[in-house]
Amino acid sequence: MNSIYLDWAATAPPDPEILEQSGRIARTHYANPSAVHKAGREAERLLCECRQRMAALLGCEPAEIVFTSGATEANNMLLFSQLHKKRDRRILISGIEHPSIDLPARTLKRLGFELAVVPADSTGRIDPERIHDALDEHTTMVSVMTVNNETGSIQPVREIARAVREHEKRSGKKILLHTDAVQAFGKIPFSPYSLGVDGASLSAHKIGGPRGVGALFVAKGRIAQVLYSGGGQENGLRPGTENLPGIFGFVLASEKAAVSLEANHRRAEQAMGGLIERLAAIPDVVLNPAGRSGRGGFSPYILNFSIPPLPGEVLVRVLEEEELTLSTGSACSSKKPDRFRVLENMGVPRKVAFSSLRLSIGPGIDSGPLNAVLKALERRLPGLRANIRD
Amino acid sequence: MNSIYLDWAATAPPDPEILEQSGRIARTHYANPSAVHKAGREAERLLCECRQRMAALLGCEPAEIVFTSGATEANNMLLFSQLHKKRDRRILISGIEHPSIDLPARTLKRLGFELAVVPADSTGRIDPERIHDALDEHTTMVSVMTVNNETGSIQPVREIARAVREHEKRSGKKILLHTDAVQAFGKIPFSPYSLGVDGASLSAHKIGGPRGVGALFVAKGRIAQVLYSGGGQENGLRPGTENLPGIFGFVLASEKAAVSLEANHRRAEQAMGGLIERLAAIPDVVLNPAGRSGRGGFSPYILNFSIPPLPGEVLVRVLEEEELTLSTGSACSSKKPDRFRVLENMGVPRKVAFSSLRLSIGPGIDSGPLNAVLKALERRLPGLRANIRD
Repeated sequence: MNSIYLDWAATAPPDPEILEQSGRIARTHYANPSAVHKAGREAERLLCECRQRMAALLGCEPAEIVFTSGATEANNMLLFSQLHKKRDRRILISGIEHPSIDLPARTLKRLGFELAVVPADSTGRIDPERIHDALDEHTTMVSVMTVNNETGSIQPVREIARAVREHEKRSGKKILLHTDAVQAFGKIPFSPYSLGVDGASLSAHKIGGPRGVGALFVAKGRIAQVLYSGGGQENGLRPGTENLPGIFGFVLASEKAAVSLEANHRRAEQAMGGLIERLAAIPDVVLNPAGRSGRGGFSPYILNFSIPPLPGEVLVRVLEEEELTLSTGSACSSKKPDRFRVLENMGVPRKVAFSSLRLSIGPGIDSGPLNAVLKALERRLPGLRANIRD
Repeated sequence: MNSIYLDWAATAPPDPEILEQSGRIARTHYANPSAVHKAGREAERLLCECRQRMAALLGCEPAEIVFTSGATEANNMLLFSQLHKKRDRRILISGIEHPSIDLPARTLKRLGFELAVVPADSTGRIDPERIHDALDEHTTMVSVMTVNNETGSIQPVREIARAVREHEKRSGKKILLHTDAVQAFGKIPFSPYSLGVDGASLSAHKIGGPRGVGALFVAKGRIAQVLYSGGGQENGLRPGTENLPGIFGFVLASEKAAVSLEANHRRAEQAMGGLIERLAAIPDVVLNPAGRSGRGGFSPYILNFSIPPLPGEVLVRVLEEEELTLSTGSACSSKKPDRFRVLENMGVPRKVAFSSLRLSIGPGIDSGPLNAVLKALERRLPGLRANIRD
């Protein structure tokens, strides 16, 4: 690919050094960590070390880390762990969750749960007041993502946690508060303890780590049992022979992201700020949600914009011809009939959503590639507009 | 590790060439296969090719392959897909299943299902007659593994399928017949169509492929919906960004195993046959199950034996000192209170099970390493016996 890759929210290009290290562990520590022999015990020792290093990054205890095959599994396993509950079967999620929260929640509804969905406001944010008002004595779980994957809007998770904890005090019943932190972890400061959540889903491949590995942070004592079971791995919470090479690569990617988090964030903020300013000067360009500003409240790694009435897919193809790789909404929704669910939930009109593009960047990207996007748009827009008018 | 590795049923040493190729794909095809841009479409094309190549090996249609994070996930997802059923909630499994079938089936029981467990006979086999007798009009799913992971006993899956299909004809109701084929696929001839099963779970890391990837074969139209959901990947049956490097490595490992299956099988049969003969000549050595013969009915890759009253764990440590890596039962059961469940189900007495060792080999292993086991036992047994008598 000679194209400039600007779809990091879908997946990040893997760090070659990390792939190399992960491959080395695949060769040296291949034994099954559950085996009682020496090679198995050595693999188990490395797995313990990985858990400790991950816990150190998150500021939690090692026993609170459950390695999974990815964030989608982490989201599903936490939601479906609720099937063991006999009563208080009410789940609260936001209207802008990733499909791996939204759809399992709807499955739980079909299986007899009550489901409440709290919509976002026009700035793309879930108002903690609305969460507060939607809680009731039967609510057993709340899930609100940390950073929205389509627009980059940062959710007020700390304030939502406060509302949930207050409600707990009044009702005397515990509520499992979860956040899908896939677009936050390794990108903006993220600490489950200081946010006050009980669960958080993380992914390796969104931060330059290997594919097929992720983690669930789950606060001690908050989940006794999940649905899937088998060999008792991961403290009984995630069965299956541990993907040690993947886990090791995930830890390396997480550490690398943590070390440069501030510098990367500053660079991204500067590059994205410049892009937003210059995009806004192009006639017909609309930022999504309309309430987006360049000054905080959004991850600097994700930008969603439209140039109505041009269809998003046409813009993706045209930019591809200019050697720029962008996407329409999220990859996980791109081929679905309800692919505008998240934008429409934020109040983006359907015709604007239909035209939406997502541009997402990573640590290596500065204003250079983003200027290339601006230049390509300047070059191609007049022709596209003329075609549409014809 | 300079030790001779004889724990291939727990996990196989990964093939270095396959790891290399898988790493190459991680670098060249990192885009998200669900993304609409060119890089995404290229990743999707390779994913399609992987599915076709895997289907060709299994003799099934590409749409019948669902790539997963491993066989444990494949087993769980098929069992828990039954939660969507409103009636006929009865599951039948064998008494010698891997924990990733046995435990989820017990969870289904707690969630309101009826569970019937058919025990093995003294040769370690599930009698098709007993399956036949245990079927009733409410039975919706049957799961019997192809090769037992602790003893290598080959199950009469084809005959079981015949019994199930006959019952279907009489009752007019479909039954989902599944087999955990982890210790069969790539090791003995395995074809889901000719066995007559509707589902089969496969694992990459047991045949030299990468960790964290597996597959579920599921016959067309037999499963409309599973429990977990998200981005709609894998024909809606397994959500989460596809682990394309892992899937590619899995396909390579499967193809490599298929090409040499017969030659490998012959070599293993010869090596294991020789070992069994010479082991039987050592006083106090007992094969598990006692009904095991050297002539068929068992996978030549797995051997379970005991030297009572020596504890299995002591033997593992002693052989470790002799640079031989073996395990007690299966890795997934090795640290569990019910770790003798499978052997006891076959009628192995507790004191013999307590002494059991599993020796498992792979394609590269001939009689050389197995002779080393015999020599080590000859060297160390007299001292161990003297200690126990003291």
